[in-house]
Amino acid sequence: MALMTGEQYIESIRKMNMEIYMFGEKVENPVDNPILRPSLNSVRMTYDLAQDPQYQDLMVVTSPFTGEKINRFTHIHQSTEDLKNKVKMQRLCGQKTAACFQRCVGMDAFNAEFSTTYEIDKKYGTSYHENFKKFMNYCATNDLTVDGAMTDPKGDRSKAPHAQEDPDMYLRVVERRPDGIVVRGAKAHQTGICNSHEVIVMPTIAMGPDDKDYAVSFAVPVDTEGIFMIIGRQSCDTRKLEGSQMDVGNSEFGGVEALVVFEDVFVPNDRIFMNGEAEFAGMLVERFAGYHRQSYGGCKVGVGDVLIGAAAVAAEYNGVAKASAVKDKLIEMTHLNETLFCCGLACSTEGTATESGAYIINLLLANVCKQNVTRFPYEIVRLAEDIAGGLMVTAPSEKDFRDEKLGKYIDKYFRGVADVTTENRLKILRLIENLSLGTAAVGYRTESMHGAGSPQAQRIMIARQGNLGAKKQLAKAIAHIEE
Amino acid sequence: MALMTGEQYIESIRKMNMEIYMFGEKVENPVDNPILRPSLNSVRMTYDLAQDPQYQDLMVVTSPFTGEKINRFTHIHQSTEDLKNKVKMQRLCGQKTAACFQRCVGMDAFNAEFSTTYEIDKKYGTSYHENFKKFMNYCATNDLTVDGAMTDPKGDRSKAPHAQEDPDMYLRVVERRPDGIVVRGAKAHQTGICNSHEVIVMPTIAMGPDDKDYAVSFAVPVDTEGIFMIIGRQSCDTRKLEGSQMDVGNSEFGGVEALVVFEDVFVPNDRIFMNGEAEFAGMLVERFAGYHRQSYGGCKVGVGDVLIGAAAVAAEYNGVAKASAVKDKLIEMTHLNETLFCCGLACSTEGTATESGAYIINLLLANVCKQNVTRFPYEIVRLAEDIAGGLMVTAPSEKDFRDEKLGKYIDKYFRGVADVTTENRLKILRLIENLSLGTAAVGYRTESMHGAGSPQAQRIMIARQGNLGAKKQLAKAIAHIEE
Amino acid sequence: MALMTGEQYIESIRKMNMEIYMFGEKVENPVDNPILRPSLNSVRMTYDLAQDPQYQDLMVVTSPFTGEKINRFTHIHQSTEDLKNKVKMQRLCGQKTAACFQRCVGMDAFNAEFSTTYEIDKKYGTSYHENFKKFMNYCATNDLTVDGAMTDPKGDRSKAPHAQEDPDMYLRVVERRPDGIVVRGAKAHQTGICNSHEVIVMPTIAMGPDDKDYAVSFAVPVDTEGIFMIIGRQSCDTRKLEGSQMDVGNSEFGGVEALVVFEDVFVPNDRIFMNGEAEFAGMLVERFAGYHRQSYGGCKVGVGDVLIGAAAVAAEYNGVAKASAVKDKLIEMTHLNETLFCCGLACSTEGTATESGAYIINLLLANVCKQNVTRFPYEIVRLAEDIAGGLMVTAPSEKDFRDEKLGKYIDKYFRGVADVTTENRLKILRLIENLSLGTAAVGYRTESMHGAGSPQAQRIMIARQGNLGAKKQLAKAIAHIEE
Amino acid sequence: MALMTGEQYIESIRKMNMEIYMFGEKVENPVDNPILRPSLNSVRMTYDLAQDPQYQDLMVVTSPFTGEKINRFTHIHQSTEDLKNKVKMQRLCGQKTAACFQRCVGMDAFNAEFSTTYEIDKKYGTSYHENFKKFMNYCATNDLTVDGAMTDPKGDRSKAPHAQEDPDMYLRVVERRPDGIVVRGAKAHQTGICNSHEVIVMPTIAMGPDDKDYAVSFAVPVDTEGIFMIIGRQSCDTRKLEGSQMDVGNSEFGGVEALVVFEDVFVPNDRIFMNGEAEFAGMLVERFAGYHRQSYGGCKVGVGDVLIGAAAVAAEYNGVAKASAVKDKLIEMTHLNETLFCCGLACSTEGTATESGAYIINLLLANVCKQNVTRFPYEIVRLAEDIAGGLMVTAPSEKDFRDEKLGKYIDKYFRGVADVTTENRLKILRLIENLSLGTAAVGYRTESMHGAGSPQAQRIMIARQGNLGAKKQLAKAIAHIEE
Repeated sequence: MALMTGEQYIESIRKMNMEIYMFGEKVENPVDNPILRPSLNSVRMTYDLAQDPQYQDLMVVTSPFTGEKINRFTHIHQSTEDLKNKVKMQRLCGQKTAACFQRCVGMDAFNAEFSTTYEIDKKYGTSYHENFKKFMNYCATNDLTVDGAMTDPKGDRSKAPHAQEDPDMYLRVVERRPDGIVVRGAKAHQTGICNSHEVIVMPTIAMGPDDKDYAVSFAVPVDTEGIFMIIGRQSCDTRKLEGSQMDVGNSEFGGVEALVVFEDVFVPNDRIFMNGEAEFAGMLVERFAGYHRQSYGGCKVGVGDVLIGAAAVAAEYNGVAKASAVKDKLIEMTHLNETLFCCGLACSTEGTATESGAYIINLLLANVCKQNVTRFPYEIVRLAEDIAGGLMVTAPSEKDFRDEKLGKYIDKYFRGVADVTTENRLKILRLIENLSLGTAAVGYRTESMHGAGSPQAQRIMIARQGNLGAKKQLAKAIAHIEE
Repeated sequence: MALMTGEQYIESIRKMNMEIYMFGEKVENPVDNPILRPSLNSVRMTYDLAQDPQYQDLMVVTSPFTGEKINRFTHIHQSTEDLKNKVKMQRLCGQKTAACFQRCVGMDAFNAEFSTTYEIDKKYGTSYHENFKKFMNYCATNDLTVDGAMTDPKGDRSKAPHAQEDPDMYLRVVERRPDGIVVRGAKAHQTGICNSHEVIVMPTIAMGPDDKDYAVSFAVPVDTEGIFMIIGRQSCDTRKLEGSQMDVGNSEFGGVEALVVFEDVFVPNDRIFMNGEAEFAGMLVERFAGYHRQSYGGCKVGVGDVLIGAAAVAAEYNGVAKASAVKDKLIEMTHLNETLFCCGLACSTEGTATESGAYIINLLLANVCKQNVTRFPYEIVRLAEDIAGGLMVTAPSEKDFRDEKLGKYIDKYFRGVADVTTENRLKILRLIENLSLGTAAVGYRTESMHGAGSPQAQRIMIARQGNLGAKKQLAKAIAHIEE
Repeated sequence: MALMTGEQYIESIRKMNMEIYMFGEKVENPVDNPILRPSLNSVRMTYDLAQDPQYQDLMVVTSPFTGEKINRFTHIHQSTEDLKNKVKMQRLCGQKTAACFQRCVGMDAFNAEFSTTYEIDKKYGTSYHENFKKFMNYCATNDLTVDGAMTDPKGDRSKAPHAQEDPDMYLRVVERRPDGIVVRGAKAHQTGICNSHEVIVMPTIAMGPDDKDYAVSFAVPVDTEGIFMIIGRQSCDTRKLEGSQMDVGNSEFGGVEALVVFEDVFVPNDRIFMNGEAEFAGMLVERFAGYHRQSYGGCKVGVGDVLIGAAAVAAEYNGVAKASAVKDKLIEMTHLNETLFCCGLACSTEGTATESGAYIINLLLANVCKQNVTRFPYEIVRLAEDIAGGLMVTAPSEKDFRDEKLGKYIDKYFRGVADVTTENRLKILRLIENLSLGTAAVGYRTESMHGAGSPQAQRIMIARQGNLGAKKQLAKAIAHIEE
Repeated sequence: MALMTGEQYIESIRKMNMEIYMFGEKVENPVDNPILRPSLNSVRMTYDLAQDPQYQDLMVVTSPFTGEKINRFTHIHQSTEDLKNKVKMQRLCGQKTAACFQRCVGMDAFNAEFSTTYEIDKKYGTSYHENFKKFMNYCATNDLTVDGAMTDPKGDRSKAPHAQEDPDMYLRVVERRPDGIVVRGAKAHQTGICNSHEVIVMPTIAMGPDDKDYAVSFAVPVDTEGIFMIIGRQSCDTRKLEGSQMDVGNSEFGGVEALVVFEDVFVPNDRIFMNGEAEFAGMLVERFAGYHRQSYGGCKVGVGDVLIGAAAVAAEYNGVAKASAVKDKLIEMTHLNETLFCCGLACSTEGTATESGAYIINLLLANVCKQNVTRFPYEIVRLAEDIAGGLMVTAPSEKDFRDEKLGKYIDKYFRGVADVTTENRLKILRLIENLSLGTAAVGYRTESMHGAGSPQAQRIMIARQGNLGAKKQLAKAIAHIEE
């Protein structure tokens, strides 16, 4: 089957019957909802780019399982080259959307499931790997978007899943039937769920034997009965309702998060990828997190490219592009952004094959990558705000600008260099606002901080993977210390 | 006359007849406008606190000119103690509003005008100082709020005011009459203008002899004919229209910026404080900027206190208040915030008397203060986002929370530690959102960057005031270098 | 009695009979030892400057106890003005020595002892305060240099003094006699001990009832029987033995640290300031540390001035003084250095009177001050190395430069701008080397890190003094949270 | 011919007849000179590791030109895998020496010459590439160490080579003979020259047509007549003369820099690789700098490993290894160090083939790599000093420690945790001192700053390679800006 066009993707989502709530009401037509649509458009870009001949190498691969051309977002990495191309594809998508394009989480879940189910089966003789491959090929062949759902609400963080007062604080199996299982719980911060065809559910932490019912992984269509979503608020979300292209900064693309509730959802047996093998929960989490921490070394770099470009345009429009301080700030932004890209590439090129044959990134370097992502975008934003100038947060609305009386004053007094229209100047400032403070700041800043695990999670992994013991031996050898 | 109560202040503003535009429409009742009101409330706090017995020492002083009790915001600093108390008053107001309370700019304009007019008169035998003192005492006695308007649009930044293509890019005298002058131009980024009774206009850069018509300073009531304002958009501005206290984070206080247009405004002679003495434009700018850079070592520290407190509450509600990484981040936030306070205090205690008797801050240290303000609030925000967690940007709306069906799921799944309600948890996260990404982020971040001059402006002053020559002599003496 | 001249000070030290060891040998003539002499010269500067009419205000005060003119280093601070002048005096001394001038520790011990003995006496009816005042006035009147000795070796840091395997790991009373006490132990990292007339010994941590024998404070002459010192190595220490003024960078001034051993030293009753009042050990430590953390906001700023000046001279000699990147780095160095000064001033101007009448700094801000000192000098050094260029660490020795054959090549090839001699260029680079990597780096870097307590000690104090509870209340008020 | 053993290498250098000066005297036996020997030992490590079976993959390759096994240090990179292995080999060598092992500069010169001579020949029909290949294979086959000499003294930096007052400020051809050329000039900061068999000379900047005589590149044996070296001083250099293994921290390894003078040196025709083709000077410089900036992402990471290990050992010996603040600092050090490694790997894996077939790194990312190297080692050092504690700079000499009387006090009072000898504790602190302030700090800090070009040089390259134009287009597309 052929890859979907962007338009086909939109229509395929339109056909779904998702239960989505926002501002206390059911969203009857999510596809055309002004708050949700930009987020859908971002995913659409992963389809559009795959149709574009100049991006074939990055966007399209031949499935090693079916021999078909598939979108890389549904691919299992077969080499370090694949891992690097993943990062480059993500940078490209970030450049084209200046937003979170959401499809990575499913790709990362695919790859984590692929190798983990292989190892579970090897130990237990289960058939999760076959289940997963069937599901995966179905998605790849039909070019579906898949959400990966990991983060449980967690309740009291000092207690294990089974020890929580409310047993639903981690998603769990509430009933086992001959033909499948019934699950209950919720997943928070789900970016892209409402633009996905399917969702892969995974546990969120390493688990012990008492957590058997929580060690569950599976996939279901997003409009399965019992699933519903409540959309989270974003800074400036309702500005999209105003109909002003200028004021939103990025009128076409965005990202959206939701709380997804699984209210006694039935999962048929052939969609189950883990069911009680608690000791493998940690492996699945670690691998997914590793892949996803790599992802940030691509997608956020792409968004960073747009922000750097926007700052450069603003500098030009403000008439200060040649000031040495401004040039130096643009260099610093570029330097920081490319450092992130270096980390994304490095954990890729140092990837290794798992037992299943799928390639996994270098875990230490992937965590180092993400740790830098929790820092540098903030500094890049700060420098962008510096270059943009205060007008970025004090400019009047488009309605004022279009007003007969007011417009001419705004046009007159907010003109920068002579050959640039005030409209263009305001547009570029709004884009910087969008990425610094607005809807996209949620993705570029806070998601850079907490997505794929908060900074402290990476520090724990860096401590674990850093091999301090070997370093101590190196030092003792140099210092001629014998103990 | 007695100091106004907060309520009296509100009513006094209500009586004014300002011409304010927003979203392309005239705001008929600005005092009760949901977007503007929080900003008015912030100014009101400067009145309320002056009524509170426990803050008398900081908020109220005896005028050295009239002997009356006046609000410190209308005071001319008589000592370094006064300068320090100014900073402490600002920290207090920041703590009580978590926003920009706007009255500083008038206070700083007062102090800059006081000493500058004194020195102009001394040179030219003019009577600007008397004009200014009369105006100042009128404001102090009647406890008025005064805006200080400095920033012109500037047009092409490589050209002097008189050399601009459009002669109005800097506010200027367009007509000189026996009874006064007529001025035209605009001032951008005016915080607090729509909550002020009067506005003091000042030039925005040092000027040469050809810029005589631009070297003008004066004061007029804000509702003078020919003045109108266009309100600037802020991140999340329209969220205030939704009527949700929870979602706005800080429902009571805020700040607002506007473009103020002076369309041929008449200024009577006794309200003129400079009129063509171009070589004094630089002095007025430098002194105002100096005072205002000091101010940031107070007000932003107060806002920082609220943000640190909010992060600490969030940590507690999230159940991680005892994690060493969290505690360390709170220490770092405190450390950075107090470093800013140190700078605010230091430039105050090193203040000196001007010829007029009014005290001025140490200019080097005031610029150092502001330079740090362009950095540390960004890092404090970053750490707050780190501690808050992703829920800060993915939490559903209050409407969802109050919904019969959805509310119970939100309550269930977003509960943190057992003894804290989900409502309180969401409230504190919204406050952090407000300060990090929302309306208050405009004041806490971007205004910290560009208010009172952008970072590069401070660097230029640090270079000028740093006395590198003396430092070079010190080094040569130690190195026994003879040239 | 008159203040000593620098020469008189040197001779007074020469008359002492200290037991000093270095490189395994007793130093027979410490005053003329090339490694020790620069350190002595630094202390001498505190005498020379007090003789200089232009520095009278900073260096000399009238004793409130004797009415005599005394050196400020022997003064008890009577006001916040005194506290600020202390910091300014320290900056001056740092500027004139580019090194640690060592006399602060005694001044800080004086002030901590003054108020603490007052409060012990008040509780216990002891006469420590009288003892101390007598000793203090003796030192002030005779213009003596006093070392303050606090840091014990500490052994196993997880155990209290009395619980150590070796009971001498904290200095302690080993015998109580009618006429006094006998003490044993050691104090580490003692800067200036070998240039002092007297030493004040203080406990190093807060103590409990079981640590009574360790809760001891007293003063004795440095050449008291049973006291001996072992000099610590510094980077490049023996370069001073080579007789090259050029190669040492700073040929005249330095600082030196020693381990001081108290091998059963007798202390007469009237020199005892604490003897078993264990609950006051914490107060003495905290106050001393507070004063000493303030000190770093002065002395290191003065050294920083020299380093900034040296970098500026190097830039000039290298011919790059006008490059915008170089100018910007000098601004950054100045900015960081003045930020430290701000902290030193701020904790001073916010000082308060203790019960004894002596003024103490604001503890929170003093800890913030020192915390910044553990960071900024490192960045200032990094920038200085950047500006200096690689020649700073690859330049040949003075012997090569003076060599008939080699000298002309060095002169030819290491010449910078045409009108500067290669000799001067090498001299300034050696000064930067000295402060970055050499003997003075010990004082400017590592001592900035660990002197007056390591960074973590300040963080604990910042946590304690930061009043997080009040900040949480502020946030809850703004967010309308009721619990 | 077989690879040399370390011992054979030492003897091969012993046989050379280099003219080396230090402290104004000719060094008669450089191989056994205590100051120079550690530097020789570092190079030796590149031979010893190549003999070690476990490091064959990294250290030894098959020459694509001769089919022989050769040391990778003499290899032309044939793939991105080769580029990555280069970085890994450098990290290994850094780990084993904790110093600069000096052989990289020749390797980087090899690779830059290979492709540049190819392109010169293509344009001019010259035979430089053949000359170079012959020389290269001679070095590879005989396993020689080659220095790459680039940095000229430069004199007045605002003038081109030909415009200098002294025409020798850049190395130049002073005579052209039928059989070769005669050159004069000097190269500064030459690490490893005195441990090399051959030296490749290259121009140091891009040149114009008037600089023809300066556009010269060639190779000669280091003991060619007319070449002599003056060794530069390092911090703590003479400590190596004292015979104390403990006090030097790293007694076996080091690095040394020298000024190399070329006093009318004859170069035969077949050793010339560029001679007047001025427009290729820039290409050679840029490629060499690119390769060398990549190198720092390997070698300094290896040294960083030792320093992190040393800090961890010190923490353990100090008894604070489990303190959360200490653990966090070690994580941060690891994070920064691995970020550098990421950059080294990333510019390698993104390498591309030149026209000659040799692979070159990605220039943008190599410059980003080096730029980070000018920052992170400084912070790693700062954290190491923090963890080590003040004893690192106040510990007595080994002579004191071995002294009968003093030793027992040092042993007693400087003991950390019970089961670690004071000797071992002092040894590890001396290693940290060595890397932070001592001889190795020259390599780990200042060389990280200035080696392969100072920070500003990388910023210029980042600006050039960052493709700001494309980024601006991305931003305009998102903001719907049409001009």
